[in-house]
Amino acid sequence: MTRKNVLYAQSGGVTPVINATACGVIETARAHRDAIGKVYAGKDGIIGVLREELIDTGKERKADIAALRHTPGGAFGSCRYKLKGIEDNLREYERLIEVFKAHDIGVFLYNGGGDSSDTAYKVSQIGKKLGFPVQCLGVPKTIDNDLPITDCSPGFGSVAKYVAVSIMEASLDVESMASSSTKVFILEVMGRHAGWIAAAGGLAQREAGDPPHVILFPEVTFDEKAFLAKVDKAVKTHGYCSIVVSEGVKGPDGKFLSDAGVRDAFGHAQLGGVAPVIAGLVKDRLGYKYHWAVSDYLQRSARHVASKTDVDQAYAMGKAAIELALAGKSGVMPVIERLSDKPYRWKAGEAPLSRMANREKKMPKKFITKDGMGITAAARTYLGPLIRGEDYPPYDREGLPKYVRLKRVLAGKKLPDFEV
Amino acid sequence: MTRKNVLYAQSGGVTPVINATACGVIETARAHRDAIGKVYAGKDGIIGVLREELIDTGKERKADIAALRHTPGGAFGSCRYKLKGIEDNLREYERLIEVFKAHDIGVFLYNGGGDSSDTAYKVSQIGKKLGFPVQCLGVPKTIDNDLPITDCSPGFGSVAKYVAVSIMEASLDVESMASSSTKVFILEVMGRHAGWIAAAGGLAQREAGDPPHVILFPEVTFDEKAFLAKVDKAVKTHGYCSIVVSEGVKGPDGKFLSDAGVRDAFGHAQLGGVAPVIAGLVKDRLGYKYHWAVSDYLQRSARHVASKTDVDQAYAMGKAAIELALAGKSGVMPVIERLSDKPYRWKAGEAPLSRMANREKKMPKKFITKDGMGITAAARTYLGPLIRGEDYPPYDREGLPKYVRLKRVLAGKKLPDFEV
Repeated sequence: MTRKNVLYAQSGGVTPVINATACGVIETARAHRDAIGKVYAGKDGIIGVLREELIDTGKERKADIAALRHTPGGAFGSCRYKLKGIEDNLREYERLIEVFKAHDIGVFLYNGGGDSSDTAYKVSQIGKKLGFPVQCLGVPKTIDNDLPITDCSPGFGSVAKYVAVSIMEASLDVESMASSSTKVFILEVMGRHAGWIAAAGGLAQREAGDPPHVILFPEVTFDEKAFLAKVDKAVKTHGYCSIVVSEGVKGPDGKFLSDAGVRDAFGHAQLGGVAPVIAGLVKDRLGYKYHWAVSDYLQRSARHVASKTDVDQAYAMGKAAIELALAGKSGVMPVIERLSDKPYRWKAGEAPLSRMANREKKMPKKFITKDGMGITAAARTYLGPLIRGEDYPPYDREGLPKYVRLKRVLAGKKLPDFEV
Repeated sequence: MTRKNVLYAQSGGVTPVINATACGVIETARAHRDAIGKVYAGKDGIIGVLREELIDTGKERKADIAALRHTPGGAFGSCRYKLKGIEDNLREYERLIEVFKAHDIGVFLYNGGGDSSDTAYKVSQIGKKLGFPVQCLGVPKTIDNDLPITDCSPGFGSVAKYVAVSIMEASLDVESMASSSTKVFILEVMGRHAGWIAAAGGLAQREAGDPPHVILFPEVTFDEKAFLAKVDKAVKTHGYCSIVVSEGVKGPDGKFLSDAGVRDAFGHAQLGGVAPVIAGLVKDRLGYKYHWAVSDYLQRSARHVASKTDVDQAYAMGKAAIELALAGKSGVMPVIERLSDKPYRWKAGEAPLSRMANREKKMPKKFITKDGMGITAAARTYLGPLIRGEDYPPYDREGLPKYVRLKRVLAGKKLPDFEV
């Protein structure tokens, strides 16, 4: 077996644990020096690969690579850059192969979601066609948990834990104050097209009547009347109402509620924030005092409250990707296979990239209660294990997490510049 | 010494550690059964005292009282209810004394901020006047850190840690994506009149150039031109810009920026959120892609990432309040005295309530950089120790914090009803 160089790239929105996957890739590759030569990482993802900006991970200290396991963000940089179809965009695909050739890349690992699976699949095809076959593998990642086949997506479990812990804590706060102050609290979470993250808020409920009392999903058309009735009932029953709302909730007109036309004093459209829209509704129709929070990137980077299950799985996917590559595989992605719910057991499996690409896994109907504003026991069985276990980053003496910043030394360029 | 009953009440907005103070009060009282009889807690604060809704903490299990140390929110309920001056409102003061008499209260502990100090002070005066002298003590608490005399306020350190950790994490996320996506991230934090919480975001900077690149304080009039120039420079220098903004930032007209007249599609004024206002400005004037988060109650309840210094101090203030009461003191409040910065050392001291009441401690000018958008070395020296140390709550097997919910058994009523 000739020693292969590996090229790893992060793609799309980052997660609290995408670097744990990078850690799994690099540490596993380093453990197989007989078969694997250098491990490069694309600077800012595929854009860096096209520009021939390849970070030589061999220049990073062992301790720093280990620290990737507990560092959020994307340590090598990521990007939102979807390669078009090969017909429309042959030049970019050819460039990728040129870069692979120039740096003797035998394995390309693309760490992303559905779009990235599609790209990795196409690259595996074009390599063969252009006479430089490269093993192309996807590595799963997305906080949205919307990848098909895999039981869950690394990144999701930690965001789910953040949302469940946060709504539990904020609800204790609101409950304390409700007799004379805020009665309705609204937490906006991510999930433009699928309600997995919002659903995770429901895990904070341990007993009937526990908050959150209302969850709004993108899968369920917003029913203003039913929503207001449920909020009012919660306030009358429990003294307060705690709400988790997905940014992707749509009204009967099919438009995002957050695009409801909020304008500032100058008449400019004000972007984003379904929470203030819901808050306005509560105030106007029910007259309750409210507070709202938009967790935005905080939820996506909150490594300080990561799920151990998620961190383990993220690492395992990186490790499995290298192991699949060593086994000669291409056009596949390691996935998480659930073996049992109780006790929760899982293992790394694999799936063909052709089946992963461009398919979104929405929440099944059976996970949403009949009134469309809560989660079922089936959802709890599925979601519960994904937030289990704590995996704190180490902290320094100043009380801050010891997140690593890599040196990111670029390998020497061998090709002419390329405009991206 | 006759055994005294103690009445404890939580006041105003709760904090991640106000229950740690309650824990300090109750555990210390229980350790002095020779001198202290029952410990009652007002249900929903002073409102419950007026209504004679007194929670008998003696009915709570030892383990549950211990768990208060790691449980956010206000375990007995709090309220925003400021007693008016005695002249305008003699009836309420008389009622308090009636309740004290009926339940043989010898010590009243009011756990709050400036307003509560004022109330506790007045109650101590009226008790003497009405012939039922009660020892009235304040116990400090506020996330805003705006109490005078005490070096810091319990609650602040944990919010400060949450904000520093969160902006550090979110900035790693933005930095990863900035080459092709979001370039400006804005985190809105609390602090209507004082910028202590916003300043804490600055602790995330370990080296020059580290995020957050801009901090906006209520103490500094918003200068749009200087702000935009600084944001633009950060993006051009670092590739992205990370911003912490206090909800209390005001424009040159003296109005809150968040009240800039944002209206929804129906023309209703939309309340709150300075972050979207700043985001709109960045978009309109600089054209950068942005994201914004409003942490709202999440910051105020995030016990999962509390500062150990803060938890220790919160507990110590509760303990000190009982000890001061045992020493026969009244009209005072335990405070935190800083003995040295390096190493950080502190002890519990005391201050007269008359000097605590209705005085707000703003950020000193020397804590804010000349350009008005950052913190100085002096600020770091002061703020740094307050976020040091971790003090995680225990988690259950489901991956959620084991926050306690007390039984809250009310003592039997002995008086006629009273309308609050």
